[in-house]
Formats: sequence, C-alpha cells, structure tokens
Amino acid sequence: MTASAASLDSIRTEVDLALREFLDRQRPHFSDPHLAVLLSAAEDFLAGGKRLRPAFCYWGWRAAGGGDEPGLRFAAASLELLQASALIHDDVMDASDVRRGMPSAHRRFERIHAEAGWLGSARQFGEGSAVLLGNLLLVWSGEMWRNSGLAPEAIAVAQPMHDYMLTELMCGQYLDLLEQAQGESTFDSALRVALYKSGKYSVEQPLRLGLVLAAQANHAWIDRLCVQYGQQVGIAFQLRDDILGVFGDPAETGKPAGDDLREGKRTVLIARALASATPAQTAVVRDLLGDPELDADGVGRLRAVIEETGALAACEGMIKRYLDDALHALGQAPIEEEARTALAALAVAATSRRT
Amino acid sequence: MTASAASLDSIRTEVDLALREFLDRQRPHFSDPHLAVLLSAAEDFLAGGKRLRPAFCYWGWRAAGGGDEPGLRFAAASLELLQASALIHDDVMDASDVRRGMPSAHRRFERIHAEAGWLGSARQFGEGSAVLLGNLLLVWSGEMWRNSGLAPEAIAVAQPMHDYMLTELMCGQYLDLLEQAQGESTFDSALRVALYKSGKYSVEQPLRLGLVLAAQANHAWIDRLCVQYGQQVGIAFQLRDDILGVFGDPAETGKPAGDDLREGKRTVLIARALASATPAQTAVVRDLLGDPELDADGVGRLRAVIEETGALAACEGMIKRYLDDALHALGQAPIEEEARTALAALAVAATSRRT
Repeated sequence: MTASAASLDSIRTEVDLALREFLDRQRPHFSDPHLAVLLSAAEDFLAGGKRLRPAFCYWGWRAAGGGDEPGLRFAAASLELLQASALIHDDVMDASDVRRGMPSAHRRFERIHAEAGWLGSARQFGEGSAVLLGNLLLVWSGEMWRNSGLAPEAIAVAQPMHDYMLTELMCGQYLDLLEQAQGESTFDSALRVALYKSGKYSVEQPLRLGLVLAAQANHAWIDRLCVQYGQQVGIAFQLRDDILGVFGDPAETGKPAGDDLREGKRTVLIARALASATPAQTAVVRDLLGDPELDADGVGRLRAVIEETGALAACEGMIKRYLDDALHALGQAPIEEEARTALAALAVAATSRRT
Repeated sequence: MTASAASLDSIRTEVDLALREFLDRQRPHFSDPHLAVLLSAAEDFLAGGKRLRPAFCYWGWRAAGGGDEPGLRFAAASLELLQASALIHDDVMDASDVRRGMPSAHRRFERIHAEAGWLGSARQFGEGSAVLLGNLLLVWSGEMWRNSGLAPEAIAVAQPMHDYMLTELMCGQYLDLLEQAQGESTFDSALRVALYKSGKYSVEQPLRLGLVLAAQANHAWIDRLCVQYGQQVGIAFQLRDDILGVFGDPAETGKPAGDDLREGKRTVLIARALASATPAQTAVVRDLLGDPELDADGVGRLRAVIEETGALAACEGMIKRYLDDALHALGQAPIEEEARTALAALAVAATSRRT
C-alpha cells in the first residue's frame, strides 16, 4: 500500500463506523416504510466517497497534537455528511444523471415515482425529494459535528469557523452557478471560483477545524498552514477535478466521459484553453461546450482543443507548482512528524487521484 | 387592537430587530456584488412573514417563567429563518410562482438570468439559486439559534429537540410530496401529513423550545401542553391553511386564488370532500384537481364541490373543536397568567387568520 493510500485508508474505517453509528441513531425516526426510503438513499449515497475531508480534519487534529480521541472521528465524519448534501443538491442544480457510478439522488426518486405510476411529474418528485434528502444530510452534518463528544471548549473555538464554512460553501456554489451562466469566465475568475467553490471547503476548512479542535486556539501558524498548504492543495484538488471532468475514465470516476463539457462547466482548464485559442478553436468551444447532446466525437474535438492550446499541460504544471509550494509550507510548520508525513501523502493523493 | 394582534405584534418588532442584527453580522461576507444579491433576496423574503413561530417560542418561554432576556429574541427569531428556508425550497418543489405577493425566490433569480441574457436555462439557474438561498437560511437558522446568548445549560437541554425538529420537518415535507404523488389520500393520511408537515413544526416545536429553554428541563406538564395545546393548534393552523389555499382572497394571502387546487394538494379538505362525494362530484375533482392551467371557472367548480359535500363546514367544525380542546388544555397548565392569555389569543390568531 502506498503512503497516500494508507493516510486515507487508516481513517476510512473509523469514519465509516462513526457514520453508521450516527445513522443507526436516526433509524427509529424512519420506521414508517414511507420514510425508510429516505434513510436508505442516504446510506447508499454515503457508501461511496473518498473520505477526503474527514482525512484532512483528522490529520489536522493529529498535526496539532491531538491524541486518540473517539469524538474526533465523529467531528471528522460529519464533513462527509456535508459533502453528500452538497453533491446531492449539486446534481439537482446541474441536472446530472449519474454520481459515483449510480443514478443521482433525484434520478433515484424519479424512478421510484415512474415505476409506481404515481400522479404528477416524476421529474418534479425526484428533484423535490433530492432537495429534502440534501437538507436532511445538511442538518445531520451539523448535529453530528456538535454531538461528537469532543470537549465543549474545543467545539466553542472551532464553531465560528464551522459556521463560516457553511456560509462560504453556499456562496461558493452560487458563484459557480453564476460563472456558468455568465459564461465570460476569465482565467482569474475561474480560479477564484475553484478556490471558493471547492478549494477552501474541501481542504482548508476541514484541516483548520482539525487543527483548531486540537489546539483549542487559532494560532498564527495554523492560519499560515491553512492558507499556504490548505488553499494550495485545495485549488490543485479542484484543478485535478476539472481535468478528470474532461479526460477522466468513466470506469474510475463513476461519471460519464466528458460530463463537465456537456454541462458547460467554465473551469480553469476551459478558461486557459480559450485564453490561447485560435479563432477556429474558439468556435469549437463556443459551439460544443454545454451542448447537452454532446457525443463521443464532440467530446474528442473539445479534448483536442484543450490539449492543443496547451491548457492541459498548463493545468498539470499548475497542480505541480501548487503541490510543491504546499509541501514546502508543510515542511516549515511546527507540527507532529507523523501528521506531516500523512498530510504530505494526502496532498499527493488529493491532487493525483484518478477518481 | 385585538388581543390576538397584540400577542403577535408585541414580539414582531423584537424579532425584526434580531433578524436585522443577525443579517448585518453576515453582511461583510457579502461585499462582493455578485454575492450581495443573495443577501438582498434573503432580506426581502424575511420582510414578509407573520412571525408566528417566534411568537409561540416567546410565549412558551414566558409561560415557563422566563423573564426579559435579550437572548430569547434571537432564539425565537431563528425560527423565522428556518421557516423562510422551508418556504423557498417548497416553492421550488411545487414550482410556485408567487409567495407573499412577490415572485417566489426561484422566479426572482430566473428573472435576473433572463434580463441579463445569460447562458443556459434561466429556469435551472433560478431553481439552483433558490436551493442555495434556502440552504443559506437553513444553516443561518442553526447559527442564530446556537448563538442566541442564552445560558449554555438552557440550550443544551433544548438542542436535541431542535435537532429532532429539523429531521421531522424534512420528513414531513417528504410525506407531503408523497401524498400529492400517490394521490390516494384518505382523510386519515391527509390528517397525518397535516400534523407532520406543518402542525408540529409550526406550533408544537416552537412552543416546546420556548418552554424548555425557560424551564431548563422537560417536565411532564410541558409534554402534555405541547401535545394537547400545541399539536391541536398546529393541526387547526394547517386546516386553516388548507381552507385559505382554496377559498382565500389573493389580496390577503399574497398567493393566486385556488393555488392549492392548481398544485393538486391532497389536503384534509379534499380528502373530506372525496369521502362524501357523488360519482359526478368525484369526477370533477379527478378532472380538475392538479391541472396547472386551471382557470377561474375550474376553481369555482372545485369550490362548489368542496362546499356541497359539506367538507368546508366539516373542516371549520374541526378547527373549532381542536381550538376548544387546545384552550381547555391551556387552562389546566401550570403556567404564568400573562402567557396563558397570550397563548389563547395566539391560538385564535393562528386558526382564524385570513392571510
């Protein structure tokens, strides 16, 4: 097993156990068979996922001297509920059919409606149910976080950051919607969305929560590590996501090939391609990007533009530079050595992943 | 001013001030003009609303001996953020165009998209933005509740009830979606949805939170009052809502005439009508209920069936009985006299309202 895999796998089991325990505590509220489908949908959805955010939180905790504390696994695992909520709502907003190799939540409920031959629009029922399922996971995430069992003093210091993370997440998602709608994304604006939409919330904030929970204070070095390591790994993570959304293998990503192209995502990758595209290449992007009917040939033509303009190589170069800078900052931080090794491995795992 | 109006108005100003203070604390995060529209949409939406849930919470607090405590107004006002979130998501799920006499949140964002001539579907942008705005209000509701400034011991006792209220709210909304989709609502199943969807969350839980925050314990008499007064006022409140959704005056409700009929809502009122309808009357309901194009003539024909089957009178009778029982239970409870008077007036206001 590689070091990257170990840094994730070591906490995967812990997180899974904590999620199962939390969901089991909710189960008595879902004994009505009509409601049981909500709980099963949550469980099936949560079975997937890389547990990346819990891992950053866990290793942040360890980095600041946190020891073997059962409460931490609940606090960390709560971030996986938040991520599940965000993905379920995201798929409604993007009208995505597939997630983690399965039908997206709204499609799952749409199918239940269609198979039962119920009244009204199956699409509307699917979307409404998925909005509610996402809400349930959102409120559960807060409940699980608060009830972790960690010391009240630790939670009190971290809570304002947790609150702000949620506001920032919703704002970042809105900026992303806006960026796709305005369609005028420059390289800079796309990079800003990458940071706000995912970078901060996927890496910086989980890491910060772990650090602050253990330190019970927000030291200057914590801020420095969160910005210099956290934000840079976060952006690189999102850039990798952008690349996988165009070039990823469906068997590994669990999403159709070129899905981001069909959805018209205005990513850093696309902005970089347009910045050095010939008029003919620009026309290809203008004509094909965001076409919901885009076929394999269209995906191939857009991929060619992204490669030929040098955008793919440029993004790979950016990922490498952000990663190098992050690892350098990590080397300077006054943290526990075992956590330093694990956070280095996590940074590599998050930015070189294929799924 | 009537006693009912006074019991609401006396806390309306307090709640408005608390909401303004909370939103002002969020303002620095919304200095980016792209994000400022989210905050204005929240402010405009919150300007409406009857502050009914905060009122039940406030008078619950006073009933259990709570004094003049600034923190309570924040805890109570947080329920208005929750209600705003639920309505915004509800309107997306029901595809409702109008709320509180203004375009619903998703229509507001849809219009921004259309007027700017942005890319992609204006409908999808509107719905996505409204989902995120609802999420923002949902997380803010929790944040405002926790940061009320009330004694940590009081919050600790009430928190599990607050958590459960949120789970129950999402489940109730899902049961409502299901009820409309299955379309087989019996009188009993419609009554159950009325209790779960709105009854508990509109009256019982806000009241319970106020009582428990003041008592810092969950006494048997609190439970009794919450069930015997809270649930009964809650169901009567929802029955009034059902009647207003069919017979309400658009100038007062802020929603188009017969809106619930067009949306095909399977309410207690409809279930009661179907239970004693002739085959011809049943055919009218089957043909017209849920027709999105339903015109004034169709609304009139459905209203006639509801009146002629005796369903309207039956529902009015139920409201009266629930109210009488609730007031009787209120009379037995060991609570402060001023709060008893106010809760009696509130029960009347909630069940005889015209908006």
